[in-house]
Amino acid sequence: MKNTLDPLEPKADKATVRRHNLSLVLRAVHDEGETTRAAVAARVGLTRAAVSSLVEQLLGSGFLTESGKTFSGQAGRPGTALRVARTGAAGLGVEINIDYVSVCVVDLAGTDRVRLTEHLDNRDVPPAEVLGRAARIAARTLDSAAEQQLRPAGARLALPGLVSGGTVRQAPNLGWSRVAAEELFGRALAAVRPDTGTLPVGSENEANAAALAELWFGDGPADRARARNFLYVSGEIGVGGAVVVDGELLRGAHGFAGEVGHVVADAAGPRCRCGSRGCLEQYAGQTALLRDAGVGADAGGAGVAELERRAAAGDARALAALERAGRMLGLVLSGVVNLLDPEAVVLGGIYRGLVPWLAPAADGELTARVVSGLWTAGSGRLRGSSWSGDAARGAAALVVRDVIADPAGYAERDGAR
Amino acid sequence: MKNTLDPLEPKADKATVRRHNLSLVLRAVHDEGETTRAAVAARVGLTRAAVSSLVEQLLGSGFLTESGKTFSGQAGRPGTALRVARTGAAGLGVEINIDYVSVCVVDLAGTDRVRLTEHLDNRDVPPAEVLGRAARIAARTLDSAAEQQLRPAGARLALPGLVSGGTVRQAPNLGWSRVAAEELFGRALAAVRPDTGTLPVGSENEANAAALAELWFGDGPADRARARNFLYVSGEIGVGGAVVVDGELLRGAHGFAGEVGHVVADAAGPRCRCGSRGCLEQYAGQTALLRDAGVGADAGGAGVAELERRAAAGDARALAALERAGRMLGLVLSGVVNLLDPEAVVLGGIYRGLVPWLAPAADGELTARVVSGLWTAGSGRLRGSSWSGDAARGAAALVVRDVIADPAGYAERDGAR
Repeated sequence: MKNTLDPLEPKADKATVRRHNLSLVLRAVHDEGETTRAAVAARVGLTRAAVSSLVEQLLGSGFLTESGKTFSGQAGRPGTALRVARTGAAGLGVEINIDYVSVCVVDLAGTDRVRLTEHLDNRDVPPAEVLGRAARIAARTLDSAAEQQLRPAGARLALPGLVSGGTVRQAPNLGWSRVAAEELFGRALAAVRPDTGTLPVGSENEANAAALAELWFGDGPADRARARNFLYVSGEIGVGGAVVVDGELLRGAHGFAGEVGHVVADAAGPRCRCGSRGCLEQYAGQTALLRDAGVGADAGGAGVAELERRAAAGDARALAALERAGRMLGLVLSGVVNLLDPEAVVLGGIYRGLVPWLAPAADGELTARVVSGLWTAGSGRLRGSSWSGDAARGAAALVVRDVIADPAGYAERDGAR
Repeated sequence: MKNTLDPLEPKADKATVRRHNLSLVLRAVHDEGETTRAAVAARVGLTRAAVSSLVEQLLGSGFLTESGKTFSGQAGRPGTALRVARTGAAGLGVEINIDYVSVCVVDLAGTDRVRLTEHLDNRDVPPAEVLGRAARIAARTLDSAAEQQLRPAGARLALPGLVSGGTVRQAPNLGWSRVAAEELFGRALAAVRPDTGTLPVGSENEANAAALAELWFGDGPADRARARNFLYVSGEIGVGGAVVVDGELLRGAHGFAGEVGHVVADAAGPRCRCGSRGCLEQYAGQTALLRDAGVGADAGGAGVAELERRAAAGDARALAALERAGRMLGLVLSGVVNLLDPEAVVLGGIYRGLVPWLAPAADGELTARVVSGLWTAGSGRLRGSSWSGDAARGAAALVVRDVIADPAGYAERDGAR
């Protein structure tokens, strides 16, 4: 039984309430994009005077900017237009995947402002070396960000494995086991950029980060609201996944939910790096796809581009490989849909560009296997991710969300640095 | 981004606040079992005087009782002991399953006070006839409840199928499709008990209801808190399921989540009544289990008892059938655990008594197939449900929870009847 109302916090002191209200106001401006003091007051349920005082503090700390032009919103008189600042506090997102590292800096509005991606093979390279290289890429990204007057409020790593408590418990495709990724990255970044020595570093599963980016920034179909209940499937060398329920990540009891790549597609199938047999990854992961298509399993990102080219040209072997992978995807996804009843299944990573060839077979399995005729072929419930559904951007946005949740706390920490 | 604090409801009027606080106080007493005004005040954050006034109203309306004896709780001075009333408002739960109907009445404390179960075959019987029979069983149960001074505040049906908006969209094992179950049951009950003509009737999937009963009343292992993140699997002729996340049911976008019985165990397996092939139900449902064990697939409840007897006696065919079903259960559950990372998987329905023979094979598959070595054989994460994990009780408790969530609203409706 869930409370919808809570008793009126008798013990909250004035400073706590103000700190909380600063966040409410900043978030209101963030969510509206451009708005006025009056519209903010109407939205958050505070007086105009209280909102004005909070806005002054947020302007003074550099979280908001205002422009002289007036803006006529739906909620009353025109006023000075408020927006979140495009300089100052920013998020640093660092995706370390099997065959690339991608780093981005997003501003308070969540916009991707700087991006640096390097394609390289991180398999069987010592973790400290991979994280050191990622730190050097991050440092170069921060140099560009600094020229745009953006200062990182924190860094968030996005990693293809089970991440918990600052550690990668297991990332089979990287060959990592119990790697203290946050600490190693933080130390390596401080070595090349001493001013980042106190920067908070966090970490997140890459599919989780990409799913959040899809949730926050993805463009839903124009005719309906963006899905808030979906499964995100990230095709890479591994197949990652994330479950979003009512606009929140489902993390599970230990933080390891979403491992759709290791759901069994065929009990007697080939051995997987995770120790099981016949996992979805063995049929629909990048390595299997490229091998079956005859592209060469180790061709990496170039191989995926080649697969797309061959499929578009009607190459029979490429089409057969994609059809088979789509069928196995659909088989496993039918179980997920029966279990979770999501609005949509979003295909990201390498699948995004392969949707035209994967989706028909997957949709066929879903239509045949989802109970109660709830899945209709071609319903649009199976779809490619938007270009915003990206792990580095999601990771960076998590940092920004933390700032918005407590701007006063960030200002204090920033002042101390 | 989730708000942890909300602005102080400026528009809530006094009557709304009092109504809300009545529920807070009733719920506090309900959750504590036996408590004092002082302890309630400390728990809900209201003054002692406010709590006393609310308690008087709840005593006057018959929701609470007090005893003269003093009780020394942890939160201050001894006082008169308060408990929720064991007479008055009650919940009526009606489980209609494939081969039985079970009806119970629970009091405000959630205690199962009256229970009437009839074993009968509901397959291929017209839905109106099944619901009419259930109504007659419910009427007899209400007669017993009335002798204990319990009055139903509402009825909740628990049904083995996809339930939404008062209708059973599909219950393949009953052969039901688009049955207006709430309306048919309400009308049939009013025909035999005219005083129930205005009784609100709701409906719920049976596995969901059983999972809630397990959540609210189940006895967790003594050495740890009761699980609040688990998958409940209900073995019956069909295999139902429910996903509980942070103490709440995960319902899905259309309310149809939890259909673990139709997750595919073998893509090329036998045709299922749902239209797919190789669903878990085809290997681990009651019909398959009894058939494989040579007990006779239509032997129903008696057949399950016979299967247990044979397994306990070491009958090789019974043991082989249970081992196979356990393996298929474990195969599908490994996917669920990889996807949702629950604390526990709880086996209910006919599985409860069969756990000693199902669990070893299932646990073996889980240990081999859950990523990252997170599943350890014999960890206790796979376990039988408690005897409280029962759909009729869960359905009845849902009615009681509604009363506790708004006692003033119930008192008004009850007065109008």
